[in-house]
Amino acid sequence: MMNPYNTDLDRNPANYQPLTPIGFLERAATVFPDHTAIVHGSLRRNYADFYARSRRLGSALAQAGMGRGDTVSALLANTPAMLECHYGVPMCGAVLHAINTRLDAAIIAFQLDHALSRLVIVDAEFLPLLNAALELCEANPIVIVYDDAEFNGPRMPTAAMDYEDFVAGGDPDFAWLMPQDEWDAIAISYTSGTTGDPKGVVTHHRGAYLLAQGNALTASMAKHSVYLWTLPMFHCNGWCFPWTLSAIIGTHVCLRQVRAEPIWAALADEGVTHLCGAPIVMSLMISAPDTVKRDLPQPVQFFTAAAPPPEKLLAAMKDAGFDITHLYGLTETYGPAVVNDWHSAWSELPSAEQARLKSRQGVRYLPLEGLDVLDPETMLPVSRDGQTMGEVMFRGNVVMKGYFRNPKATREAFTGGWFHSGDLGVVHPDGYIQLKDRSKDVIISGGENISSIEVEETLYRHDAVAVCAVVAMPDEKWGETPCAFVELADGQVADGDMLKVWCRDHLAHYKVPRRFVFGPIPRSSTGKIQKFALRDQAREMQDRRISSLT
Amino acid sequence: MMNPYNTDLDRNPANYQPLTPIGFLERAATVFPDHTAIVHGSLRRNYADFYARSRRLGSALAQAGMGRGDTVSALLANTPAMLECHYGVPMCGAVLHAINTRLDAAIIAFQLDHALSRLVIVDAEFLPLLNAALELCEANPIVIVYDDAEFNGPRMPTAAMDYEDFVAGGDPDFAWLMPQDEWDAIAISYTSGTTGDPKGVVTHHRGAYLLAQGNALTASMAKHSVYLWTLPMFHCNGWCFPWTLSAIIGTHVCLRQVRAEPIWAALADEGVTHLCGAPIVMSLMISAPDTVKRDLPQPVQFFTAAAPPPEKLLAAMKDAGFDITHLYGLTETYGPAVVNDWHSAWSELPSAEQARLKSRQGVRYLPLEGLDVLDPETMLPVSRDGQTMGEVMFRGNVVMKGYFRNPKATREAFTGGWFHSGDLGVVHPDGYIQLKDRSKDVIISGGENISSIEVEETLYRHDAVAVCAVVAMPDEKWGETPCAFVELADGQVADGDMLKVWCRDHLAHYKVPRRFVFGPIPRSSTGKIQKFALRDQAREMQDRRISSLT
Repeated sequence: MMNPYNTDLDRNPANYQPLTPIGFLERAATVFPDHTAIVHGSLRRNYADFYARSRRLGSALAQAGMGRGDTVSALLANTPAMLECHYGVPMCGAVLHAINTRLDAAIIAFQLDHALSRLVIVDAEFLPLLNAALELCEANPIVIVYDDAEFNGPRMPTAAMDYEDFVAGGDPDFAWLMPQDEWDAIAISYTSGTTGDPKGVVTHHRGAYLLAQGNALTASMAKHSVYLWTLPMFHCNGWCFPWTLSAIIGTHVCLRQVRAEPIWAALADEGVTHLCGAPIVMSLMISAPDTVKRDLPQPVQFFTAAAPPPEKLLAAMKDAGFDITHLYGLTETYGPAVVNDWHSAWSELPSAEQARLKSRQGVRYLPLEGLDVLDPETMLPVSRDGQTMGEVMFRGNVVMKGYFRNPKATREAFTGGWFHSGDLGVVHPDGYIQLKDRSKDVIISGGENISSIEVEETLYRHDAVAVCAVVAMPDEKWGETPCAFVELADGQVADGDMLKVWCRDHLAHYKVPRRFVFGPIPRSSTGKIQKFALRDQAREMQDRRISSLT
Repeated sequence: MMNPYNTDLDRNPANYQPLTPIGFLERAATVFPDHTAIVHGSLRRNYADFYARSRRLGSALAQAGMGRGDTVSALLANTPAMLECHYGVPMCGAVLHAINTRLDAAIIAFQLDHALSRLVIVDAEFLPLLNAALELCEANPIVIVYDDAEFNGPRMPTAAMDYEDFVAGGDPDFAWLMPQDEWDAIAISYTSGTTGDPKGVVTHHRGAYLLAQGNALTASMAKHSVYLWTLPMFHCNGWCFPWTLSAIIGTHVCLRQVRAEPIWAALADEGVTHLCGAPIVMSLMISAPDTVKRDLPQPVQFFTAAAPPPEKLLAAMKDAGFDITHLYGLTETYGPAVVNDWHSAWSELPSAEQARLKSRQGVRYLPLEGLDVLDPETMLPVSRDGQTMGEVMFRGNVVMKGYFRNPKATREAFTGGWFHSGDLGVVHPDGYIQLKDRSKDVIISGGENISSIEVEETLYRHDAVAVCAVVAMPDEKWGETPCAFVELADGQVADGDMLKVWCRDHLAHYKVPRRFVFGPIPRSSTGKIQKFALRDQAREMQDRRISSLT
């Protein structure tokens, strides 16, 4: 018999609409037009204005020829303009390409070309960087310059259009475009590219809607929460928090730079309830002088990712009034898709044990349907013994559409019906996963992913380098920094300073190895470089350095 | 040019899964197996057991032949079995048909037939009612009897299978069925049927997932919230709260009967944080003797619907430590889809003004994409002046699939791309809607919808009744009660008591008119009964009665 529940009960506009986070802002502006949406320095902007300006931006972009499937890039700090881009760009049907402002010109050039960028909105601070990139790329996007009053550096003269003028030319009542399908792209974000070129991760309206809500539920974010932007919005669209805040009618507190003083000031003066960041942000806050630190008017939720928070830092943050939650995810999962969901009974344990439990990455976010550690050969789950390694894999609605213009990488990433993270981990008996190593050669420094392969390729281009290998070295401040092992070419002379200068000229600064070690590099019998041995060596060197300093 | 974001970026099992609230329970049981999921009298059941029992139920149902598109009915109080049905029934692919236990046998018989019910899970208390219904209907469902330890009434002897035995025969590791499509039906709920037969509202997994999360966001429900079941789960699946609680790893506190003593006990002893109910529940709580009332250990959120909460009650509840939120919705919208989203500034206003603001139904829930008051002729929005009447209409993902086996009613309900609620209302300048009248002849008594037409049809079957009209009469306790106006047939004699007995024999008790008025019924020039005049008359009579009593 036919299923009677599938008869005469079809989708129609009254009972089916594409999921999109744009609607969160529309609702916030309609219901709480006067509520403060954005704080930025002395600027306070309410939801009516935030929505009207986003619609103006969407309208201006449409007038400039942007529409469905066009890429609009943003090279911006955590400013109101960046928040507006998260709504205005998809409002005209275009796809937001937020660029990491710490990258070098060559990689930005690659991204602009690969993403088929048609328009770039750039902060005045990063205009020189953009111009350098534009000289290297074939793309010829329209350039709009955002001159933020909070930027106190020098301005480069430019003929490009001013962002405020551009927005002013748009219609505040713009009838923005709903996605035709909730599977339509909303954003593209490039990974650091561990092998070969960076990959463009394409996300969609459905996933952004679901992860934005997932954040609010995971973080128990009540109506009118106040969120401080220590996390760069160019990282996976700020983990979807630009959309989360509209869902709960919250307040964004912007921040151009991650410095201790404005962070503490915002916490105390703006009543911040939530913020996100790598452990480096915590270190920065805790190591601030007492004159900068402030008493908190309420408990603050801090969401951290990139590396497990160290015990000492956890204890110090707790004393200062913060509740730390450890998250994990990738650009391919819209940001955090795994949470160290805390059991209240664990808070009774000794602090070392708490830190051990908190260092685990955890369990799936509510909108992620599947998380497991599988043997990538057999695709079978590993034993839940906290010992057996496998590859961390994801499945669900907050996994990307795929890699832009890269069907081969997309196919490989989704082999066997799971997204392969490339991260190696274990599952503990209670089902919490923990990362143990990365199968991709990624170094995470201050929350930024660095491809060891990219650094190696740069070194190989130097005449003096015959063989090299770059691995992560533990670092108290940055979590990890790159450490380079080098075998010199016959008859060549080099030292660390020479190679450091070379890297500075060819890489973003944060990717430059802090340390260069010269001598034979250990290899396996088949000639493969044994990176694990190098990592051990780097760790030991660092330990010795620390103990000699203390 | 083709949209490059639609190329080689297709759905696959790694990045697309049907939305379903069943996954919330799977996650809760995996991550917090030991957390208390259900409290019922002296019973405390954790999430591991709740999940295992739900899987057993799903498995047992599958063994009994239930599968995709089959209807499983539940005639249950707010018990653990009813919660298990909300997961176990969809786990085998079947559709949950929760029956209002206050209905009479004839209407239940109609529902069982119309819904093509194949199995009924019935509380021992309602077995006599079910048996009476089964005698009237053609359906011949398997009957499973749930004998709840908290039911202290007499048991009817029965040969039907015991629920615990049935569940015990299922597999606790049952590989439950994901919906094939998130549009698959999850439940069917019958409306009171104001004209003609009751209509079977079909809801789907996608909507249940979204409204369940919408509840948590709307109610700012933090992790581990504790929810008291004063709202019957047979009303729109308890407004999706059976699923919401798993999403936030909360605790259900069950309640067989809505009585003041167990409510106050649960609030104080179980740390209840949230509950829902019609204003009658508040009255019941507030009017309880002081020996029954308890001090609350924390502020409690109370969500009310069905009628605007009166000022006096609001003030009394506030004094007792409750925060009242007014919701509005219909079975067709999974329960609440509209919320009186409160502005904190309003709390500074005089209490009469607060009550006036709170009496408005409000604005759209986050997962409802559209809410408006339209002129049903032109389908244009009415002026936002708080005066111009129109029909309240809904659009979005928490609007039903349609009416079961009733394409004509479905088509009519969705005319013009909006769901027509049948409720008349206005829009205030701030966008909040307010109901002003019902175009359907519904009387809401103690949170239950009563069709005036059904009561009239019953009266018309009495020989003494020539013409009759039933309207709502205000009632301090029940909100409204039915009031009947009757013109006697020539030569016939009757009084209120006679007709009341007649109605009792043919209607559920709560539908029986409290008052009968005899005499000529006002009609328009075209002969149409002027119900508005009768409503005025009923209101005046009631006012006089109240003032003569005080």
